[in-house]
Amino acid sequence: MSIALIILAAGKGTRMESDLPKVLHRIAHAPMLWHAMRAGQSLEPARSIVVAGHEAEHVAASAQAFDPEARVVIQSEQLGTAHAALQAGPELEGFDGDAIVLYGDTPFISQDTLEDMARARAEHDVVVLGFEAADPGRYGRLVTEGDALIRIVEYKDATDEERAISLCNSGVVAADAATLQSLLAEVKNDNAAGEYYLPDIVEIARARGLSAGVVHCAEAETLGVNSRAELAGAEASFQQAIRARLMADGVTLQAPETCWFAWDTVIGRDAEIEPNVIFGPGATIESGARIRAFSHLEGCHVSRGAIVGPFARLRPGAELAEHTHVGNFVEIKNAYLGEGAKANHLTYLGDADIGEGSNIGAGTITCNYDGVFKHRTTIGRNAFIGSDTMLVAPVTIGDGAMTGSGSVITDDVAPGALALGRAKQVEKAGFATRLFDMLKAKKAKQNKG
Amino acid sequence: MSIALIILAAGKGTRMESDLPKVLHRIAHAPMLWHAMRAGQSLEPARSIVVAGHEAEHVAASAQAFDPEARVVIQSEQLGTAHAALQAGPELEGFDGDAIVLYGDTPFISQDTLEDMARARAEHDVVVLGFEAADPGRYGRLVTEGDALIRIVEYKDATDEERAISLCNSGVVAADAATLQSLLAEVKNDNAAGEYYLPDIVEIARARGLSAGVVHCAEAETLGVNSRAELAGAEASFQQAIRARLMADGVTLQAPETCWFAWDTVIGRDAEIEPNVIFGPGATIESGARIRAFSHLEGCHVSRGAIVGPFARLRPGAELAEHTHVGNFVEIKNAYLGEGAKANHLTYLGDADIGEGSNIGAGTITCNYDGVFKHRTTIGRNAFIGSDTMLVAPVTIGDGAMTGSGSVITDDVAPGALALGRAKQVEKAGFATRLFDMLKAKKAKQNKG
Amino acid sequence: MSIALIILAAGKGTRMESDLPKVLHRIAHAPMLWHAMRAGQSLEPARSIVVAGHEAEHVAASAQAFDPEARVVIQSEQLGTAHAALQAGPELEGFDGDAIVLYGDTPFISQDTLEDMARARAEHDVVVLGFEAADPGRYGRLVTEGDALIRIVEYKDATDEERAISLCNSGVVAADAATLQSLLAEVKNDNAAGEYYLPDIVEIARARGLSAGVVHCAEAETLGVNSRAELAGAEASFQQAIRARLMADGVTLQAPETCWFAWDTVIGRDAEIEPNVIFGPGATIESGARIRAFSHLEGCHVSRGAIVGPFARLRPGAELAEHTHVGNFVEIKNAYLGEGAKANHLTYLGDADIGEGSNIGAGTITCNYDGVFKHRTTIGRNAFIGSDTMLVAPVTIGDGAMTGSGSVITDDVAPGALALGRAKQVEKAGFATRLFDMLKAKKAKQNKG
Repeated sequence: MSIALIILAAGKGTRMESDLPKVLHRIAHAPMLWHAMRAGQSLEPARSIVVAGHEAEHVAASAQAFDPEARVVIQSEQLGTAHAALQAGPELEGFDGDAIVLYGDTPFISQDTLEDMARARAEHDVVVLGFEAADPGRYGRLVTEGDALIRIVEYKDATDEERAISLCNSGVVAADAATLQSLLAEVKNDNAAGEYYLPDIVEIARARGLSAGVVHCAEAETLGVNSRAELAGAEASFQQAIRARLMADGVTLQAPETCWFAWDTVIGRDAEIEPNVIFGPGATIESGARIRAFSHLEGCHVSRGAIVGPFARLRPGAELAEHTHVGNFVEIKNAYLGEGAKANHLTYLGDADIGEGSNIGAGTITCNYDGVFKHRTTIGRNAFIGSDTMLVAPVTIGDGAMTGSGSVITDDVAPGALALGRAKQVEKAGFATRLFDMLKAKKAKQNKG
Repeated sequence: MSIALIILAAGKGTRMESDLPKVLHRIAHAPMLWHAMRAGQSLEPARSIVVAGHEAEHVAASAQAFDPEARVVIQSEQLGTAHAALQAGPELEGFDGDAIVLYGDTPFISQDTLEDMARARAEHDVVVLGFEAADPGRYGRLVTEGDALIRIVEYKDATDEERAISLCNSGVVAADAATLQSLLAEVKNDNAAGEYYLPDIVEIARARGLSAGVVHCAEAETLGVNSRAELAGAEASFQQAIRARLMADGVTLQAPETCWFAWDTVIGRDAEIEPNVIFGPGATIESGARIRAFSHLEGCHVSRGAIVGPFARLRPGAELAEHTHVGNFVEIKNAYLGEGAKANHLTYLGDADIGEGSNIGAGTITCNYDGVFKHRTTIGRNAFIGSDTMLVAPVTIGDGAMTGSGSVITDDVAPGALALGRAKQVEKAGFATRLFDMLKAKKAKQNKG
Repeated sequence: MSIALIILAAGKGTRMESDLPKVLHRIAHAPMLWHAMRAGQSLEPARSIVVAGHEAEHVAASAQAFDPEARVVIQSEQLGTAHAALQAGPELEGFDGDAIVLYGDTPFISQDTLEDMARARAEHDVVVLGFEAADPGRYGRLVTEGDALIRIVEYKDATDEERAISLCNSGVVAADAATLQSLLAEVKNDNAAGEYYLPDIVEIARARGLSAGVVHCAEAETLGVNSRAELAGAEASFQQAIRARLMADGVTLQAPETCWFAWDTVIGRDAEIEPNVIFGPGATIESGARIRAFSHLEGCHVSRGAIVGPFARLRPGAELAEHTHVGNFVEIKNAYLGEGAKANHLTYLGDADIGEGSNIGAGTITCNYDGVFKHRTTIGRNAFIGSDTMLVAPVTIGDGAMTGSGSVITDDVAPGALALGRAKQVEKAGFATRLFDMLKAKKAKQNKG
């Protein structure tokens, strides 16, 4: 069965107190919208239709950054969920299959749950996702008879008997796409808020003689986000889940609650992540690598046996081969370090290729920027870059070459050669003593004055 | 009505196991004493009188650092709370108005609560602050009849019926200042501990025909601190409250529980604070600024659109204009960065002015200290400071000037000029190969030996 | 009474999903095995016998790293706890005294508890350690009559009445060593798993007319570790206990839950540890020292009045005398800083001795490595090392000497002298303006092209 996802993402999210539309606020470095879209990916949807409204351009750009094929429709007025889903109509023209309505601010729906819903369509014309609420509060209630869903009743319209029901409405629905659109078209806004409510389609469907059923999921999957405090809570839940999964997979986390992962972080078995390590998007860490405390990694790859940190920063394009060492106060950006290469102290390597076995001395800097352009530094194998070497790119250091401490290297260095640029050391006897005496006398005078 | 605050701050706090007096232990970088004094500020007190005892000199200095007008009286022996409050007498000479007694180790009393107390004085001669205790335990109980407070009974003296009361005594009281002093003077120490207890004034007042009443506050406001574990708990409560407030105001906190704020931190809407950011006192962050992970900020100002960190340190006097960038392993102290200026890697800028649009290369250091005096560095607009430039202050770099990588700049540089101090690069062919061969041979020989 | 410890450490720990044997996974930087061994140390055991199996060589090496006298026996097949303890037999030949069986994956047994067990041997032939379980679940139950332990019944073999018992078996037992071995030799494996169970010795002992008794401990002491999630939980418990102990002893911890200590960390009264500080093994901090945020310390000593961090890294062999300052982005390894010496910014000091009162400028690096050998740097008292000085070791700087900023120092410097190696500053008027104009023109052309 072909599937279309309709993701509602038009709201402003006033309680976020933000200029950024709510669905673009991030959890684990991905916009909430992406989490919702990703949940539907295992259904291999034929179409993903995002209903944007507030800041629609930004929402559209984000949706298409995740899925370039995503279609975006605009809900220019926020007239309710049924009205929002109805806007997907034009993008469903000629589509033959099922539609599932998801929410851009409900990031925890699981792939398994959506697969359950797709399967349940075999038995019901309309499938609604429900959950047993620990505290049903003001959620809409699902009124069922045996297997069949009779109707969805809003809390404020519910009888006492209905309020006693703990099976609640998540808002997620599935139906044949054409059927869904025709049901949505019949929804009325004759209620206090004057809004078109998606749950009303159940009653309309049953009036037409169609059947409705319920698929169950865990309450945690239906968690919505309406404020920054709820966003922080959702982030915490997401992190807790990813930490538990990593530990189950054999990753060593001494202090799991101090490590923060991105939605796409990949870490191998017996890799060790010390406390206070932060992953931005796009990091992959191989088995047995060790990421030491206070490190920050994004868009990078760390191979087996490598040691990173403490206090290391790997930026996008950092690629560490096996058994490399990147130490404290070292930044690596868009640079490859060959097997066993080391950069252990106070170094910046940007736009560089470092050959295997090379040792980069403390304080080394690749001078990759001339104020307008960026240039590349190439270092061969088993080279020895002396401390405080400035490598003024573009520049190439040959295999087995050496640079003297404190040298500014502007010209290429031949393999096996020593390059240095250094003024001769001179000594002025007694000068320091006289200078300090003078400075201290001046200070004493000032203090008196 | 004119108000005098009497803040009791004479105790040693033996259970703190510290040489520092208890009220000087800090919460969110402010001594507990300041929190208590600050609570009273909205009453615009005519006098603030701090009763010091243990390490009185330090306590006095701290009180006057917060409020230079604060008056300090000494309680040389710790004979109880009534005795302590009585010491304020001489500083109340000639004062016509109300006095409120607060505690230097009870930092959470809110301004609203104190305003309630001031208002309640219209109806009662003596006003006591009470709270409904979740677990009343050994707190003193407030015995009331309708609106009136009859007496305060110590737990150990209470009948079973009185112990069943859950309304407890916070210790905070308000009364006409002269009345209070005369009540305090009548308190006796005929109890097991031989101490003069402040709560006894209620009974004395009623015996004189004066009325007493109760103002209620939340139990959390009355939290006292007696050990370091309780101090850590108070710190955690304070941080939780400030994080919640910031999020409600629209600040983005990915991992709120990993960020630590000072009592006076100010952050604008849609500013983003990544995980593991620490604020010392005196930091203000404008809307839309981004403070990246592992940054440490104190006494600084960060303007709209600026990006700080990760791994950045802003020290007192750091002033970042709009759209500045301060990157990893960079320290800024007593320095101004003009609009759009950048210092992204491994840099120390101290005692400096950097013009707008200037780029400070990696490894740049302002050499501001000659061993005795500090000197200032001035950099113009759109200058380009090459990597590893040493700026030996006092020194001035003109607008649009440039320094070569690895230069030591001791003389001023004219606008538009290039300054460099650099030895010529020389190359010794094959030298590195021969040197390593020799060193390795030596090592092999040692290993055999 | 002479004591032998038998520590069972043969298991693989399949649920750890690790190549490392379970008992070598660490809590607070010590393998779990060490925690178990350490618990027994106060008994001053005459012999410590570790029963290894999976990865026995690594386990043996770790055991002997903790206690060079530890004896290791091999259990080649994992046939149950009785079988494991029986392997200790050969190492108990000629030993006259008690044996206590402990577990390498049960790191929280306290010294007090083991002393209780040793004492209880005066009254019983076999002593079993039991605990009142909050949720007895599937633990083995201790069936007692008055003071006497009748038998230990496995959950699956227990009657309903026995399952109602909440006194559970920790697995730890004590007995005369020879008696224990003879009891173990009688244990049968006629059970579903075909394993030899240690608890069976109680029934065998009683059949022989020997008496058995129970010593009680807290459930938390019996916590075992079977998965990485449980390991993280054990780490958290350990850290919580050490933080509480430090605070009770008068250490200032603003945010205790953000600081991570090693099993052997020692910190003095009124020392201050700011948030996000991590201790590896072997750190001692004297009273009144201040360790600022984001610091990482291992194998180091910090004296009274010293200030470290923020963002400092002290590596093994770092030794800071009183009133030293080590500041941001500074790494110290195998180096001594004399009283009042300062290294405040962006510095690497490795293999060095720094005299009292010396000031190490920003960006200073000891070039201690020539690619094969490490060399030492010696700096006298009250020296002033200019910013970005490269100290090419071996090298000595005399008392009161000075180096100029940006100098590479390869030769020794006499006391009171100024050494510098610096190219003369030259200026090319208008060069920067022309260069940028050219680069910008090139970029503009590219953008068009």
